Amino acid sequence: MVDPQLTPQGKLRHLLTLDGLPAATLRQILDTAESFMDVGERDVKKVPLLRGKSIFNLFFEPSTRTRTTFEIAAKRMSADVVNLNIATSSQTKGETILDTVANLTAMHADMFIVRHGQSGAAHFIARHVAPHISVINAGDGRHAHPTQGLLDMFTIRRYKGAFQHLRVAIVGDVLHSRVARSQISALTTLGVPEVRVVAPKTLLPPGVEQLGVQIHYDMSEGIRDCDVIIMLRLQNERMKGARLPSAQEYFKQYGLTAAKLAHAKPDAIVMHPGPMNRGVEIDSEVADGPQSVILPQVTYGIAVRMAVMAMLAGGGGD
Amino acid sequence: MVDPQLTPQGKLRHLLTLDGLPAATLRQILDTAESFMDVGERDVKKVPLLRGKSIFNLFFEPSTRTRTTFEIAAKRMSADVVNLNIATSSQTKGETILDTVANLTAMHADMFIVRHGQSGAAHFIARHVAPHISVINAGDGRHAHPTQGLLDMFTIRRYKGAFQHLRVAIVGDVLHSRVARSQISALTTLGVPEVRVVAPKTLLPPGVEQLGVQIHYDMSEGIRDCDVIIMLRLQNERMKGARLPSAQEYFKQYGLTAAKLAHAKPDAIVMHPGPMNRGVEIDSEVADGPQSVILPQVTYGIAVRMAVMAMLAGGGGD
Amino acid sequence: MVDPQLTPQGKLRHLLTLDGLPAATLRQILDTAESFMDVGERDVKKVPLLRGKSIFNLFFEPSTRTRTTFEIAAKRMSADVVNLNIATSSQTKGETILDTVANLTAMHADMFIVRHGQSGAAHFIARHVAPHISVINAGDGRHAHPTQGLLDMFTIRRYKGAFQHLRVAIVGDVLHSRVARSQISALTTLGVPEVRVVAPKTLLPPGVEQLGVQIHYDMSEGIRDCDVIIMLRLQNERMKGARLPSAQEYFKQYGLTAAKLAHAKPDAIVMHPGPMNRGVEIDSEVADGPQSVILPQVTYGIAVRMAVMAMLAGGGGD
Repeated sequence: MVDPQLTPQGKLRHLLTLDGLPAATLRQILDTAESFMDVGERDVKKVPLLRGKSIFNLFFEPSTRTRTTFEIAAKRMSADVVNLNIATSSQTKGETILDTVANLTAMHADMFIVRHGQSGAAHFIARHVAPHISVINAGDGRHAHPTQGLLDMFTIRRYKGAFQHLRVAIVGDVLHSRVARSQISALTTLGVPEVRVVAPKTLLPPGVEQLGVQIHYDMSEGIRDCDVIIMLRLQNERMKGARLPSAQEYFKQYGLTAAKLAHAKPDAIVMHPGPMNRGVEIDSEVADGPQSVILPQVTYGIAVRMAVMAMLAGGGGD
Repeated sequence: MVDPQLTPQGKLRHLLTLDGLPAATLRQILDTAESFMDVGERDVKKVPLLRGKSIFNLFFEPSTRTRTTFEIAAKRMSADVVNLNIATSSQTKGETILDTVANLTAMHADMFIVRHGQSGAAHFIARHVAPHISVINAGDGRHAHPTQGLLDMFTIRRYKGAFQHLRVAIVGDVLHSRVARSQISALTTLGVPEVRVVAPKTLLPPGVEQLGVQIHYDMSEGIRDCDVIIMLRLQNERMKGARLPSAQEYFKQYGLTAAKLAHAKPDAIVMHPGPMNRGVEIDSEVADGPQSVILPQVTYGIAVRMAVMAMLAGGGGD
Repeated sequence: MVDPQLTPQGKLRHLLTLDGLPAATLRQILDTAESFMDVGERDVKKVPLLRGKSIFNLFFEPSTRTRTTFEIAAKRMSADVVNLNIATSSQTKGETILDTVANLTAMHADMFIVRHGQSGAAHFIARHVAPHISVINAGDGRHAHPTQGLLDMFTIRRYKGAFQHLRVAIVGDVLHSRVARSQISALTTLGVPEVRVVAPKTLLPPGVEQLGVQIHYDMSEGIRDCDVIIMLRLQNERMKGARLPSAQEYFKQYGLTAAKLAHAKPDAIVMHPGPMNRGVEIDSEVADGPQSVILPQVTYGIAVRMAVMAMLAGGGGD
């Protein structure tokens, strides 16, 4: 089957998921992001790479944080950005997603950043857009959030160098996380020999072991001797659901505290995709502590998104 | 009576309605739009014509689609665009429309794009703005939506060349359509000898025949031998109202299907202002078929809006 | 105590309140604003001063009007502006203000424009941001709205020249006004010898006389022989509260009419921060009359905001 994300020449055409992306492509994105790192530190944070391009933030579910990262990345590349919050407009008029996309395409759109509550929405759009248009999945249901996964890889590489000798633990609500799947996929592709998921049974998807991960139900065991600990966000609606006794109980068992962190390697880094629930999945002492790289993740996220946009805008066609 | 849209020298000062605009002005707008057609196809979709101008999207009722077309058109002309969704803010603080407009004028606004639920709102604003400010009506109640009417004329000219030998049918909810009136007016002004409206009696405004159109209640008869078929959107709220039996029944009688389309000329084009209700006013087979020019309409809409903005910003004063 | 708004060298680092700002700093801002006055009148309203800077409109309570003034000021200085309406997004995800700010900082933000319903919010943020980031308070609870206070000073100076011989009356809901306190503070600092507050007892904060103002309960007495009359907005929710009999009664006693205005000096100017409640705190005859400088205030507001942004972006670091 042809990967819809790559051109026949193997160039990046869309970014929909990290599943199936070759290691070389992942590394190329990370290298490109590295080259954008300095833009954010300049006095004039602006490069002309996407000047005169029309980029649409097509958000079918609201997300100020993710929308903002893409908007600022696009503006720093001099693109024209238009934000569309579709939940509150055309959809209420009964227009289909494809009609919306076809309309924006007819306005000479160059790129769609798509956030949607349903898994597969970005793929669906990518299958139907004109050849010169690129789609970036900014989160679709429980499925994928590839730029988040990429910025996580970028973070790990920045702090740990090579991937080949790492032990990485992903802790928390793997079941509902669109980030976890992207992370597991990328970590494996990039050669991490040991990826663990740490969670109560009720928050693990069935068959997760087939992704090549080790399963741990005990937090201290799960993060023992790890180099990287990736905490997942526990969404509010889960906390009072049937799957969990309570937020307090969850924190006791799976919240990352300094005491639990002591089981990991002394130089282990702590990551979190944000926004954090302090006192639920992570203790403030750790979140703000010396091993936390949570804010650098955000910084890298801009560089990674600039890199992806630059590659899509520049490389897809030739 | 002085036309508020034209300067004493006959230049375009506001665009409020197509009613009463001379054919020469209409043609000038279409010609100017033609000159902007290539901007959308460039690698760098950007011209400096409105650089440093402040354009306000003043939307008193929400419309992502229309707002987006104006926003992208303005950005491609390098203007500074500010979106104001007034329904949710100042109006709740009890400020009058004129105070809002006076305030934005005091901020050195150059142009207002106005969408309002009440007919005449854009005219009202235009009557009160300072001499250097232009107003574009982006839809006011049931009254007018002139840039939509203009892009329809642009589409017809592109596909059919001259207007002088055409037979045009406008089909559907003429009663509630702010587009239909603009279209009838422009078609007549541009010399189309035969304009028909096709609709159930309950969806025709009283006295519509005085606009110089032929009335048809039967769809097949109404579009017979036509060169252009313009389908109107049937708004959801009408479908369950007293005026119509049901959406299914409406589709049966007035929905454009391939079978009905066969009554028109073989090279007839099918237009729709969007967003479409597939299966209500138009069948997908037709909407996506070879005679449909619905997506080109969107593309032309950007060029037409750029043209209008350029003419207003450049030509009103001298 | 160190003033968090100034660097050790006395340069402006944040703009949080006018309380405690030295007269020299106030005058420097007004002088800088004067130099920006011509930008709004140019054909190309654009200067490159903030090109490549990332400015975030961080609005925790909605305000189209204030947000618009900052957005247009920032765009005229060529900044990249991102609007965040936090009420509807991250906060619902349970993220703290400081986490939101830390995240935006990690995206290499340069400036935050903060509007918040709670007094002290902008100060709180300013205390926690990185050294290169500036915060502008765009209104926090009942506390301060310093750019409004500054534009009022700019207006008075423009119309009255020096401050040293003026008699200024501030009329209305001083209790709930975040503007009044900023005004009293700035007027006193700039040397206005007589500042009066005119209001019913129920709309005056306890201890207001300690701010160095004269208190008047009678409107005609309160504005007698004044050079400047600043009307405050009466918020809708107050009108039906326990503190006031009714809007009609309020207008009768404290609404500025031509008859009452006759008690002031013949060349007195009338100011209002907007949005106005015509017929409640001010009569339309006065609001639109020859002594009203309400719309010039708006114009000056853009220049003042450009000045503050330019000073913060340029001067804080050295």
